[in-house]
Amino acid sequence: MTRQDAQTPEGKELTTSLLATIDSPQDLKGLSLKELERLAAEIRTTLIETVARTGGHLAPNLGVVELTLALHYAFDSPNDRIVWDVGHQCYTHKLLTGRRDQFHTLRQYGGISGFPKRQESRHDAFGAGHASTSISAALGMATAKDLKVCPSRIVAVIGDGSMTGGMALEALNHAGDLGKDLIVVLNDNEMSISPNVGAFSSLLSRKLSSRTVMSLKKELETTLRAIPGVGTNILQLLKKSEDSFRAFFTPGMLFQALRFHYIGPIQGHRLERLIETFETAKNIRGPVLIHVGTVKGKGYHPAECDPATFHGVGCFDVRTGESPSPTKGAPPSYTSVFGRCLVELAEKDPRIVAITAAMPQGTGLVPFSELYPSRFFDVGIAEQHAVTFAAGLAAEGYRPVVAVYSTFLQRAYDQVVHDVCLQNLPVVFAMDRGGLVGEDGPTHHGVFDLSYLRHLPNMTVMAPKDENELRRMLKTALEHRGPIALRYPRGRGLGVALDEAIETLPIGRGEVVREGSDAVLVAIGHPVAAACRAAERLEQEGIRAAVINARFVKPLDKDLLLDWVQRTKLLVTIEENALQGGFGSAVLECLADAGCLPRRVARIGIPDAFIQHGKPEILRKEVGLDAESIARTVRTALSNPHGACIRAIG
Amino acid sequence: MTRQDAQTPEGKELTTSLLATIDSPQDLKGLSLKELERLAAEIRTTLIETVARTGGHLAPNLGVVELTLALHYAFDSPNDRIVWDVGHQCYTHKLLTGRRDQFHTLRQYGGISGFPKRQESRHDAFGAGHASTSISAALGMATAKDLKVCPSRIVAVIGDGSMTGGMALEALNHAGDLGKDLIVVLNDNEMSISPNVGAFSSLLSRKLSSRTVMSLKKELETTLRAIPGVGTNILQLLKKSEDSFRAFFTPGMLFQALRFHYIGPIQGHRLERLIETFETAKNIRGPVLIHVGTVKGKGYHPAECDPATFHGVGCFDVRTGESPSPTKGAPPSYTSVFGRCLVELAEKDPRIVAITAAMPQGTGLVPFSELYPSRFFDVGIAEQHAVTFAAGLAAEGYRPVVAVYSTFLQRAYDQVVHDVCLQNLPVVFAMDRGGLVGEDGPTHHGVFDLSYLRHLPNMTVMAPKDENELRRMLKTALEHRGPIALRYPRGRGLGVALDEAIETLPIGRGEVVREGSDAVLVAIGHPVAAACRAAERLEQEGIRAAVINARFVKPLDKDLLLDWVQRTKLLVTIEENALQGGFGSAVLECLADAGCLPRRVARIGIPDAFIQHGKPEILRKEVGLDAESIARTVRTALSNPHGACIRAIG
Repeated sequence: MTRQDAQTPEGKELTTSLLATIDSPQDLKGLSLKELERLAAEIRTTLIETVARTGGHLAPNLGVVELTLALHYAFDSPNDRIVWDVGHQCYTHKLLTGRRDQFHTLRQYGGISGFPKRQESRHDAFGAGHASTSISAALGMATAKDLKVCPSRIVAVIGDGSMTGGMALEALNHAGDLGKDLIVVLNDNEMSISPNVGAFSSLLSRKLSSRTVMSLKKELETTLRAIPGVGTNILQLLKKSEDSFRAFFTPGMLFQALRFHYIGPIQGHRLERLIETFETAKNIRGPVLIHVGTVKGKGYHPAECDPATFHGVGCFDVRTGESPSPTKGAPPSYTSVFGRCLVELAEKDPRIVAITAAMPQGTGLVPFSELYPSRFFDVGIAEQHAVTFAAGLAAEGYRPVVAVYSTFLQRAYDQVVHDVCLQNLPVVFAMDRGGLVGEDGPTHHGVFDLSYLRHLPNMTVMAPKDENELRRMLKTALEHRGPIALRYPRGRGLGVALDEAIETLPIGRGEVVREGSDAVLVAIGHPVAAACRAAERLEQEGIRAAVINARFVKPLDKDLLLDWVQRTKLLVTIEENALQGGFGSAVLECLADAGCLPRRVARIGIPDAFIQHGKPEILRKEVGLDAESIARTVRTALSNPHGACIRAIG
Repeated sequence: MTRQDAQTPEGKELTTSLLATIDSPQDLKGLSLKELERLAAEIRTTLIETVARTGGHLAPNLGVVELTLALHYAFDSPNDRIVWDVGHQCYTHKLLTGRRDQFHTLRQYGGISGFPKRQESRHDAFGAGHASTSISAALGMATAKDLKVCPSRIVAVIGDGSMTGGMALEALNHAGDLGKDLIVVLNDNEMSISPNVGAFSSLLSRKLSSRTVMSLKKELETTLRAIPGVGTNILQLLKKSEDSFRAFFTPGMLFQALRFHYIGPIQGHRLERLIETFETAKNIRGPVLIHVGTVKGKGYHPAECDPATFHGVGCFDVRTGESPSPTKGAPPSYTSVFGRCLVELAEKDPRIVAITAAMPQGTGLVPFSELYPSRFFDVGIAEQHAVTFAAGLAAEGYRPVVAVYSTFLQRAYDQVVHDVCLQNLPVVFAMDRGGLVGEDGPTHHGVFDLSYLRHLPNMTVMAPKDENELRRMLKTALEHRGPIALRYPRGRGLGVALDEAIETLPIGRGEVVREGSDAVLVAIGHPVAAACRAAERLEQEGIRAAVINARFVKPLDKDLLLDWVQRTKLLVTIEENALQGGFGSAVLECLADAGCLPRRVARIGIPDAFIQHGKPEILRKEVGLDAESIARTVRTALSNPHGACIRAIG
């Protein structure tokens, strides 16, 4: 995608000849500062125009154009390793490391990934997608380099949002202790996806509260008094003004106390200064932290004004920054149905509180946060804390709803086990992005949740077939007296009518949505719709397939299952979850324990592999979860009623 | 267990009449300081004598006798909530809160737990067992208290070791932001189980390195120079001595910067000072951190001298502190076989490195750490970081072995998914304490690992039938080119001979350990031995049961399974793991996918419930995993060959 004569957002003509000459970071080395600056402008244009077409993470990438150029100018990738935290800021890196011509395939099926990926390039030293992992990985690499006595440098680039994730702090603690050569670039834009929360972030930005300043001042006075020789003038000075004291306590002190060499804060859009700093850092032994201030969305006005919206976007109009308005009458997203329903239920029940780990927009909690600010908690990128914080609220009689993407709840698996399930506390897990999420790919697919939740004692696990059932499940969850999870997919609902009065569902009961005597398709969650469409196709061929909406993965509706297994020749389970340990696996266990295993079961779901990125409909077809594939599976199985293996006895 | 006239370790007579009068914390309120001190001595005696008999966590409990007394004196439990981190320091708390008379049943089947447990007492505000959860839970409670406008106080007691766990730092960050009334007592004994590692811990103890001090000094100078009015005398002073500067940077600054009111460090064995401090803290609004210095093992000479050994102990002789020497010729523990084998393999392969999260003793890595200090990494209580740090090493060509208790790897589930499996990196997970661990109970049983690992693409999962097979599996793992886990139980091996030359195992192949035509028992891991004993019993009754040692949970030996399913009337799977999603579940999936489901399968394993504490042999009997129970299951199933349900079709 080397475009000559692309238009900048402002409409100025720009010859993109520089970017066209960069096939690897080596090609940067000969450029002058002026040329690098021109290259930065070309890259911005490419980023904006490409993401406007493909969708993707725009604002974080616009914020690190100069930072990335300076890194690749000063360091020598792939000999030096650059580890990107989260990885949604790696687009410039991809453009500079041999993927310019594939860049237009960004996030598309078969195209390049929106995240760093070891399989994709030798320049992607470590993959990412989830937050706060970079310092740990880079420290492992720095340790390896030391053991190998190899001169390469290791750089981790981490945002201030990711820095609040516990494992980043665990890694800083260990890095300070080990003392290996490691460069951590703190990309401080004062945001996660939304503005950052937490005391740490105000420390970084020196926005210490008066209270904090007062308290630090007192501490310092006491300490100074104890040092012989300290005159009263310094004490006087400290008393004078809060502002001078504020300057006194720097973010650097924190990192220095953790044994990092601290450099910064430096302006993250001045190439010269960045390059100088990185060159300096190369010659420092031991861990170094470079604090760089960047502007999320830099250089594109709509993104600078609304960096949260432009964090991750679909297609948009480059001139206006506006996304095409949703098709009139298009069904609402599951996320928004959840968010509105929670508001509705919270009005009647003051015990309901809501918790997000830095994703109020993504999880649909913005309306709740506006209506019930005192009952809404954004804990920062900190899923572990989010879950145990919820458990604490539940222990005191509240009904916390942890709204979280399925893939991110993986980060709090032990807290779900140890703090919630073991104590049988009524925490509701509203798991968005369950199943295949599409363009974000394997780091973000939520395809393990049914497996990692259903083996936990006391846990109830549900998935709604449509957005109206989501509402019923949310109400059911909030009235349940134990841990309970509901998972629903990314994207729009089916457009079904929403009941005015929300009714709860009986725990552990499924429903028959279609009768049929040849086969029974037992589906969970949104694949119920595909199962119905498959059954319709099969009917045209004379095959009568029943469809059951299981609703619950745990507890399963055993009676319903046993009944239908005996009434039909073939049982097919359908789920958008790993086949290993998932819903179909639970059905097998249930039938085995009842001594009622059918001879032939077909299980449809995510195979034992990581599914790549691409449009969900393409991916669903790939794994056999679309209606036609389901119909084909049923057809094949029925034409081979004895299965692949003729049993000798039984 | 109110004993009159117990002996102190020093042999002095002591009348335990005071402890006998304490039925609830209310009973402390009338005591004088002298009486409280006498009570502390009585409690120490009770702790030492009880743990000498029952085994348990001694050193951490001896360290917090005064701290606990002062907390219960100053606060009003259960109206005020005391949340214990990890919880292995709660014995004094249990003695003071109505459990004195049950204290002799500590950690025994049906007796009181060694950890706080909500079901056990209203005074146990929140359960624990794993580290670093207390601030999150307490912050949830403090938030609830605020929403309810209720005057109770919330206190979290956390060790300096636990404070290095990421989620504790996530919670501090959120607590500083929320500003709720919350008291965090930092119990600083400069140890986790072993001496603490990490930069944070040297910050707490003010043991800053010269390098750190130099660097902080420079930073401070620069800052001071920028403040108008700072005279040269303070700059001179700073230059003078490192020591005065060292005093300048206090641990309090960190917490104050995170918006906590900081008090400390205070001496943790002086009751009067502790009580005063807690009384003061009660009147402070917003989050408070009280930094208390304690001595692990305080008051019992053997424990003070060797707190790591006395962290958790079996029975010992109170006078000498010595544990009974192991029975001559007793088999070695799995842990020690693993540790020795790793040393042996590491000698030949310099790529092998070993990682522990604060448990070098528990995981058997001490010999490795002594022989290969540069290849050994104790990362502190930081499982998430441990796994991704290992992934970083693996990405650079090393062969990291993460030695970890099964229950604690739960804390790094997402790192296993996202950083190891997704990138198919060759990290070896040596999972100790797989299965029922016994007296530590439900927070520590490692009964979910087969379920939470086997659904991950690229992962290989093994469990050895004995200590010799453990060695073969470790070698196999280190030669495998992808993520691989081996799990083995707490306790001693079977006493089998160890092969001189360790041979690898073919991946995904099981072995037939006993022939038989009536039933086939397919077992994984150490239950293979019980399965063999069951088969022997059955043979005496004329029932011929084959036994297969599966070795691999993933990939399963499909051919072997299909063969035996067709040759026998009954398939029985046996595992010391949750039946939900575990090994037996994997076998069902495999047979279903092959179209070869037998009519009748019996699955033996951990039922869908949290298993309480008690001796492993009692617990195994309870869940049906002992030889007699296995034999009974086979007998029953064979006598009812059509299962519980007669299928109508098939």
